[in-house]
Amino acid sequence: MTVSIPERYTDLLGREKKAFAYLALVRSDGSPQVTPIWFDFDGAHFIFNTARGRVKDRIMHRHPKVAFVITDPDNPYRYMQVNGQIEDETEEGAADMIRSLNVKYHGNPNYNIPPGQVRVTYKVLAERISTM
Amino acid sequence: MTVSIPERYTDLLGREKKAFAYLALVRSDGSPQVTPIWFDFDGAHFIFNTARGRVKDRIMHRHPKVAFVITDPDNPYRYMQVNGQIEDETEEGAADMIRSLNVKYHGNPNYNIPPGQVRVTYKVLAERISTM
Repeated sequence: MTVSIPERYTDLLGREKKAFAYLALVRSDGSPQVTPIWFDFDGAHFIFNTARGRVKDRIMHRHPKVAFVITDPDNPYRYMQVNGQIEDETEEGAADMIRSLNVKYHGNPNYNIPPGQVRVTYKVLAERISTM
Repeated sequence: MTVSIPERYTDLLGREKKAFAYLALVRSDGSPQVTPIWFDFDGAHFIFNTARGRVKDRIMHRHPKVAFVITDPDNPYRYMQVNGQIEDETEEGAADMIRSLNVKYHGNPNYNIPPGQVRVTYKVLAERISTM
């Protein structure tokens, strides 16, 4: 089951807007966690990228349910709330993906990946979207 | 156990900054939920206010662990991540509290509480704070 993006809010997903996602996850002890994170949208999936072994990675690897808010940086009262399911997790192309996100947010592809760090890309399908 | 606010970030809690909290909660089915919410800080507690019966209220009433991010509206790369425990839940003074929050965010106390709506205030003690 997927849902479509309300048309009046698609600008929040565009590369010009540079909006952040506030990604909520559930730790293994049942307590919540939330972090701002870069994202991209490929027309179907919300795409997140993190480093292998970080808390976000460990939780998402284990627990496929996520929720996030994407707020208009120009208006905090305008936002999209998404509940979704991780559909894909891959290291393939993940280093290129973080460079591509660096282009979106900082305008250049020179994202420094420390030696030994492995990047991982998570693709999320929205199951419920509400907008404000 | 409580923790202190890093001094360089106390401006995020001030009334001038008008920052939002992105509040993450865990639903009864174990999936995460996140919403932008107004907050205040009384020097010890983070204060949230919602309407009795809303999803946020039902979760917080049942599950005292919360997490939230407070981001500088002027710089999305500057934020405070808080994990906390609800220490108090009360309807007493809660209508005045939402009016006070309306003063903080909109500069006036005329917050419209629909007939029959009961407000509730949650006070959270921070257990872990990290800053970026």
